[in-house]
Amino acid sequence: MKKLLMVYAVLIATFMLFLYVYAFREDTNRTEDAMYGGLHGDIGEKYVMVNFQSGIDYWKSCLKGFEDASASLNVSVEYRGATQYDANEERTVLEQVIAKKPAGIAVSAINPDALVVSINKAVEAGIPVVLFDSGAPKSKAYSFLGTDNYNAGVKAANQMAELMGGSGKAAVITLPGQLNHQERTRGFQDTIRTLYPDIQVIAVEDGKGDQLVSGSVAKRLLGEYPDLTGIFATEANGGVGVGNAVKEAGRLPKVKIIGFDTDKGTLDMVKSGIISATLAQGTWNMGYWSLMQLFHLKHGIVQQVADWQGSGMPLVPTYVDTGITVVTRQNVDSYYAK
Amino acid sequence: MKKLLMVYAVLIATFMLFLYVYAFREDTNRTEDAMYGGLHGDIGEKYVMVNFQSGIDYWKSCLKGFEDASASLNVSVEYRGATQYDANEERTVLEQVIAKKPAGIAVSAINPDALVVSINKAVEAGIPVVLFDSGAPKSKAYSFLGTDNYNAGVKAANQMAELMGGSGKAAVITLPGQLNHQERTRGFQDTIRTLYPDIQVIAVEDGKGDQLVSGSVAKRLLGEYPDLTGIFATEANGGVGVGNAVKEAGRLPKVKIIGFDTDKGTLDMVKSGIISATLAQGTWNMGYWSLMQLFHLKHGIVQQVADWQGSGMPLVPTYVDTGITVVTRQNVDSYYAK
Repeated sequence: MKKLLMVYAVLIATFMLFLYVYAFREDTNRTEDAMYGGLHGDIGEKYVMVNFQSGIDYWKSCLKGFEDASASLNVSVEYRGATQYDANEERTVLEQVIAKKPAGIAVSAINPDALVVSINKAVEAGIPVVLFDSGAPKSKAYSFLGTDNYNAGVKAANQMAELMGGSGKAAVITLPGQLNHQERTRGFQDTIRTLYPDIQVIAVEDGKGDQLVSGSVAKRLLGEYPDLTGIFATEANGGVGVGNAVKEAGRLPKVKIIGFDTDKGTLDMVKSGIISATLAQGTWNMGYWSLMQLFHLKHGIVQQVADWQGSGMPLVPTYVDTGITVVTRQNVDSYYAK
Repeated sequence: MKKLLMVYAVLIATFMLFLYVYAFREDTNRTEDAMYGGLHGDIGEKYVMVNFQSGIDYWKSCLKGFEDASASLNVSVEYRGATQYDANEERTVLEQVIAKKPAGIAVSAINPDALVVSINKAVEAGIPVVLFDSGAPKSKAYSFLGTDNYNAGVKAANQMAELMGGSGKAAVITLPGQLNHQERTRGFQDTIRTLYPDIQVIAVEDGKGDQLVSGSVAKRLLGEYPDLTGIFATEANGGVGVGNAVKEAGRLPKVKIIGFDTDKGTLDMVKSGIISATLAQGTWNMGYWSLMQLFHLKHGIVQQVADWQGSGMPLVPTYVDTGITVVTRQNVDSYYAK
């Protein structure tokens, strides 16, 4: 009977020990969770990316950044967009997204005006909105994350001047109606005028964002100016169109081409030497830091002042420049999608 | 004996159950930690803020942002700086910080050149460096987070034009040798010239960042120009000096003053109506988002490409505009330190 009691005692003691150890560990974990929890949300917290022409390659890296940030922060994301280049369609999609009251929305605006009313409605309803890639400065969105397009034009000009040996005739093929393309063109022209007086920009033409239109514009310019040695296309389709035109006209490698963005068509032409350089935008950073800002807005992790609305102080940095890189044959391999 | 066996069996079963439950919970926790861990570092991971004139009020909110981010991310921070306005002293402090191999350094550079060699040494040794408030564009630092000073000048000009009723004579008192003050002045002048042709900027003078010097410059200008009705001081001491001079000359409220920053002296003059407006910088955001970038650089949470060095792609957004706000009597109360 004494032996039996001993066995009981030992069993109960062991049991209590386990209980104590595990209970204690649980407590420790809880404390660590509070202390070392870091920045994290809830998997039911959904952030939405809204854009236009949602199927094109360009957005893939933006979305990857958005998704990577959601993994960092343990929240969910959804990708929505107008399939066409259509302002009404994008507005409809945005309105549908707002109706579901998501935790935050990152919008790339098809033009500066079309979405202002919807964006403001979302912000007034307490849904954080940031803009990426193309902005809507008159809206109440908290910030814009994207390329400094004027600076992109400056970089293109410096690269072009080097390719042209500092003198000769150059042309720009662009989208004259869109703000970002106007800024790229202005940065290019200002820089050539100021720093490279021996280079002349003889034409700024409309390529309509289309490969064939841009190609035929280039063909005409090549005919009009036999001494043309540089063409800057401010968007991707234009660059490929110009590349085809210059090649067909047999004016390679004398005519140097600078394109824009890093779609496969452009990269292939950089690799084969038809396009001398293209400009890569920081698309992953647009997506990643958009979500990072939305998360901070949603969770109120911002400067604390007495009266927010009244202070007028911005809650998050108002503009995030995601950078621009010159891509040439030397570094082109890094830019192919993996 | 049978009863005894039953008791044993029940005890053992209960024990196994507890073991199972707790072991299972532990497993769940571990999975949750990996899945829902969020962004967090280690408390032994130290990030350092380095600046100059480290004792002045201006930095307090930058440091608060830096500290708040360290709490978000569960890392440690340290505040170091040159006590004087002395480039050699800041360089020495920075070198001492680098020698301790911290997880990252946020530097406010006393001038664009003095720290370039040290900053590059840190980056080459694998220590992430970002610049805040005042940059060093020629260095290898990953980014700059601060005010768009040209835009601050634009805002000051629009505010001044409103105060002056769109016409009259205005002057600027600035620090002509420093880049940020040059940009504020240029933004002011460009905007007045372009948008307000009936306002004339009759003088741009050096206030040497000093209250008394700025005051005596203002006194002289008030004497020379009896019809002067607007003075823009591009830094805090100057604004207070100008405020005293205009008050003593009995030229209030006819002469409107716009100051800079939100030190107590300036805010008091805004509150009492001597200074009509001042410009608040997003200092908390400078500190917060500097640490956020350093953390991402340290942990390699950046876009993944085939060959980083070769690609030339920026790892984090290259410029973060922390915003600027116009502070008037209406919203001044929000800006006093709590």
